Amino acid sequence: MILLEEQTVKLARLGPRGAERPVLVDDSATYDLGSLTGDLDGDFLAGGGLDAVRKLRAAGDLPELAVAPTRIGPPVARPSAVIGIGLNYAAHAAEAGSARPESPIMFLKTPNTVCGPTDAVAVPPGSRRMDWEVELGVVLGTRASYLDSPQDALEHVAGFVLANDFSERDHQLVDSGGQWSKGKCAPGFTPTGPWLVTPDELDHRRLRLRSWVNGEPRQDSNTSDMIFNVELLIWHLSQYLALEPGDLVLTGTPEGVALSGRFPYLKAGDVVELEIEGLGRQRQKLTAP
Amino acid sequence: MILLEEQTVKLARLGPRGAERPVLVDDSATYDLGSLTGDLDGDFLAGGGLDAVRKLRAAGDLPELAVAPTRIGPPVARPSAVIGIGLNYAAHAAEAGSARPESPIMFLKTPNTVCGPTDAVAVPPGSRRMDWEVELGVVLGTRASYLDSPQDALEHVAGFVLANDFSERDHQLVDSGGQWSKGKCAPGFTPTGPWLVTPDELDHRRLRLRSWVNGEPRQDSNTSDMIFNVELLIWHLSQYLALEPGDLVLTGTPEGVALSGRFPYLKAGDVVELEIEGLGRQRQKLTAP
Repeated sequence: MILLEEQTVKLARLGPRGAERPVLVDDSATYDLGSLTGDLDGDFLAGGGLDAVRKLRAAGDLPELAVAPTRIGPPVARPSAVIGIGLNYAAHAAEAGSARPESPIMFLKTPNTVCGPTDAVAVPPGSRRMDWEVELGVVLGTRASYLDSPQDALEHVAGFVLANDFSERDHQLVDSGGQWSKGKCAPGFTPTGPWLVTPDELDHRRLRLRSWVNGEPRQDSNTSDMIFNVELLIWHLSQYLALEPGDLVLTGTPEGVALSGRFPYLKAGDVVELEIEGLGRQRQKLTAP
Repeated sequence: MILLEEQTVKLARLGPRGAERPVLVDDSATYDLGSLTGDLDGDFLAGGGLDAVRKLRAAGDLPELAVAPTRIGPPVARPSAVIGIGLNYAAHAAEAGSARPESPIMFLKTPNTVCGPTDAVAVPPGSRRMDWEVELGVVLGTRASYLDSPQDALEHVAGFVLANDFSERDHQLVDSGGQWSKGKCAPGFTPTGPWLVTPDELDHRRLRLRSWVNGEPRQDSNTSDMIFNVELLIWHLSQYLALEPGDLVLTGTPEGVALSGRFPYLKAGDVVELEIEGLGRQRQKLTAP
């Protein structure tokens, strides 16, 4: 479990795809949350699940996980929506040939793109421009609709995750008629995790985020460089749609993607690695279509 | 139950929001499907639910619904994705000031926009350009990913529904940075139903579809005027994302919306009505934000 060794408390889902088991991980052990909930999902988060976990942990009432897990799943099951933000780092907007946006640009990914942080991901058939995007992900804890101000945003946030917003640029920009979702929704295009960290456990405003392809560095930036910060994004989105518990908001990617022209696009056999300070590390092997 | 009187067999969900009961409706009665399934959802459709309904009906083994329902819900629960197609009727593309698309334009709506066909819908706060869009909806019955040809599409379709793809044009086109979803996802923006009809029960290639605002005619067209037909759309979408059982594909709207400049936009107090031949009628009263 090399991916689950750090100091803060983390929530994760371990086990085979579709049969993941909810766990809590700290620096000494992995605890089974199966007695508390069937899964880490929107209902669990909205029903005060995180408080219940904290209480059981403080009381020392959580059993250790009996079986060594074979796979890390995405840390939240079945989001009702996966919401992407485009061009939210100035240097990335520039490398993409776009102007700095005047307000957040929202697009959607289908929830079935969400997979675990080390799952293999297939290059879509015929793909010539598959690209990586390391992003800070925000998981909603309670419904957020028409929030009064950005100051109200964090109370609706269950926690933060690492995510890869894989993109196929021809599908996103050429085949699309201008609507990006066509290049954002191929199976496996949203690796998420390894774990969820609650807002009190890290400073999401200042996290280094990085990516590598075949061991070579690509992106290296900081969430402090976002044009629109997490609080503003959640407030802003809530004016246009109701965010549901368990929903995942991807806050945009910094410079250093293949779209810049500085790096080759991805192909089968490549290995993509991502890391955000405090949120762990991902590694995806790309497979043939 | 004035909305549930026609000749073919229809599947619907009746009852309070979040507690709808699955039913089958024919020209003589409304039958309770509660003994067969908890709900009409993707799992039910993918698990051969429609065949089971047909068998019970043929055997005369379905009980009539005991309690008169008070509300019609959307005919399928919890789609994992709601997929919209833009500019799929030539005259509508022209009235929107857009070129005829060379391939289908896909955008996504959040699934929590789906509501029943006669639910009141709130005008979003500050909205100045809320618009109606009558559309033929396609409900997936089985997973569709990388289909070989449009000829394979219909076997993945559970049935057809009437839907309103409500849109807020400022949110879609002005605040959006060009990504339409911001104007497509307000609460209640996808009234769906009243019922689902299986593909063998109607010719989806030739259905008249119409809309009215406050009793005055707006749209009046036919699904035969689609630029990209249902079979092509499902095949095409499957090249970019995996369609899941229960997912809803909205196939685009014909001319006659407010965006044309020929009609005023919607405001609180307005009544929107929609109809597709064989798929029933909707009526939404618009309420203040």
